[in-house]
Amino acid sequence: MHKLIKDHILSQLGGRKYDLEVPLDALDDAAVIQGIVFTTDSHTVKPLFYPGGDIGRLAVAGTVNDIAVMGAEPIALSSGFVVEEGFPLTDFEKIIRSMREASDEAEVPIITGDMKTVEKGALDQFIVNTSAIGRRGKALDRNIAEVKRHRPFKARWLLDSNLRAGDKIIVSGTMGDHGVALLSFREGYSFDTELKSDVAPLNKVIEKLLNVGGITSMKDPTRGGLANTLNEWSEKSKLGLLIREENIPISTGVKVACEMLGIDPLEIGNEGKLVVAAVPQKAEELLAALRGTREGREAQVIGEATDAFREVAVETAVGGRRILPEPAGDPVPRIC
Amino acid sequence: MHKLIKDHILSQLGGRKYDLEVPLDALDDAAVIQGIVFTTDSHTVKPLFYPGGDIGRLAVAGTVNDIAVMGAEPIALSSGFVVEEGFPLTDFEKIIRSMREASDEAEVPIITGDMKTVEKGALDQFIVNTSAIGRRGKALDRNIAEVKRHRPFKARWLLDSNLRAGDKIIVSGTMGDHGVALLSFREGYSFDTELKSDVAPLNKVIEKLLNVGGITSMKDPTRGGLANTLNEWSEKSKLGLLIREENIPISTGVKVACEMLGIDPLEIGNEGKLVVAAVPQKAEELLAALRGTREGREAQVIGEATDAFREVAVETAVGGRRILPEPAGDPVPRIC
Repeated sequence: MHKLIKDHILSQLGGRKYDLEVPLDALDDAAVIQGIVFTTDSHTVKPLFYPGGDIGRLAVAGTVNDIAVMGAEPIALSSGFVVEEGFPLTDFEKIIRSMREASDEAEVPIITGDMKTVEKGALDQFIVNTSAIGRRGKALDRNIAEVKRHRPFKARWLLDSNLRAGDKIIVSGTMGDHGVALLSFREGYSFDTELKSDVAPLNKVIEKLLNVGGITSMKDPTRGGLANTLNEWSEKSKLGLLIREENIPISTGVKVACEMLGIDPLEIGNEGKLVVAAVPQKAEELLAALRGTREGREAQVIGEATDAFREVAVETAVGGRRILPEPAGDPVPRIC
Repeated sequence: MHKLIKDHILSQLGGRKYDLEVPLDALDDAAVIQGIVFTTDSHTVKPLFYPGGDIGRLAVAGTVNDIAVMGAEPIALSSGFVVEEGFPLTDFEKIIRSMREASDEAEVPIITGDMKTVEKGALDQFIVNTSAIGRRGKALDRNIAEVKRHRPFKARWLLDSNLRAGDKIIVSGTMGDHGVALLSFREGYSFDTELKSDVAPLNKVIEKLLNVGGITSMKDPTRGGLANTLNEWSEKSKLGLLIREENIPISTGVKVACEMLGIDPLEIGNEGKLVVAAVPQKAEELLAALRGTREGREAQVIGEATDAFREVAVETAVGGRRILPEPAGDPVPRIC
């Protein structure tokens, strides 16, 4: 997928012909033009309803989060539905209501939309695209001022390329919940513990963190999970990341499920989670702030950036080290 | 569809909780928040390639036009692809190249994107969503100043509710081409004349027209064709429209095809066409400006707004009058 995008999409649509603050080529969470942050996401999650959420909540929360992790304030969403003829109206109503609730939670309105129907059989039920716009808020400026108290910092947004050696890496909670919950539910697996997705808009939490300050970059570890997020940082910031495995929060249910299914919880897509890079001087304060929120109770510092190597290295509890590569594909398809 | 959107989507997502210049409830071509014009469109056109265009060109041009008909300058696009596994890479490349070309033509960059693949059989090939953002440009201010020389005008954008009795209605060219071309090609009909779609970004043409000035509203007559456009104006501006049938440009090929297929060319979706409402004092000048462009060579004044009744009335060549109702459904599905 990564290669496909680079070879076929960027070769046509990339380039610097227009004056962009953050271009498509950056392959970051959102792009920036004339001060407007802009992102888009098509959702094909299957099934449409699952423990802890549905496609509507996922779409709104995920797209709000893509704007917010740039350090921007999300200001509005669009929604474009493609629906198969005969799709149950009650399901459609439930999805719309979920979108409304997530939009209220985030305080980001859905202001424009489109709907297309296709004949029965042309589509596996229902697809929704959500796009969002955002802009610079005061919290981002405060955050950057705080970073600059500790080290030079030129970026105007929280980009993947912003990390420097010494930056601490913080995760906001347990990894793998969303993907494993969806997979288990979809395939009808039954594990001892109940697995639940934790999809949520995080713009309010992020605003709190920006007001603490010192954040150099931020991502929501969706497709490809933590492994993908860390590799994007490593690649784009041109440095290594040393991660302590025992510090990565993973619920027992997810651990058990992953062992039984033979998949790596670090490669599984999350929703409602954050990975934060920050100057070391502010890491403890940010951790405390995160733990003070409902969404960040189980936050942990999991490692730091280093110039000693260029990969993502995971240190095990007994002292061994392994390289955590960029995931080749999604171990769990259609979870977002 | 209209009822579905009103009953189920607006009841949840509408409302004035946020401070919007143009809200979702207006059901206009785009919404406006904090000075940013925002629109979205999902494209399910079938087949993906057809005489005169393809889904890529259609997506970019259609979405650029939705921003431009508000009187705004489009500044960027997003694209969200959903692709079935095994979709031919050469087709994907052709679509991306078309998007690039249309984007270059419009001078509006595609700055952010997303791509999802679904398993074979889950989707009829390929869907693309394009969203766009725009902002106020000087041409719109000039246009509005010119309107105000002739009558009171309070709107800040070219909304469906802006028309007043006396406004002239202009179409930029022949009606029905896109829908009939697509339908004929899809169903394998062969008519004497070659039918071709004329999908094109119109933001440059619109900028020219705004610089002439006097435009009170503008629409691209896509789904539901001219009949839908005129009825939206009539309903939202609370007035009647009197249209002279003989002045509506329709190509011979489309006429013949529509007669044979038993469909009304006024209900068929167009791409690359404009319907303009303007103060009468500027109508001839706007018509001349339109005719001076490649896209508007066959432009015509087709009628005017009136307070004498509240419907869309079509006057035939022999003096009869018929009501042109809002189309119940799309006579040609999946053309956009």
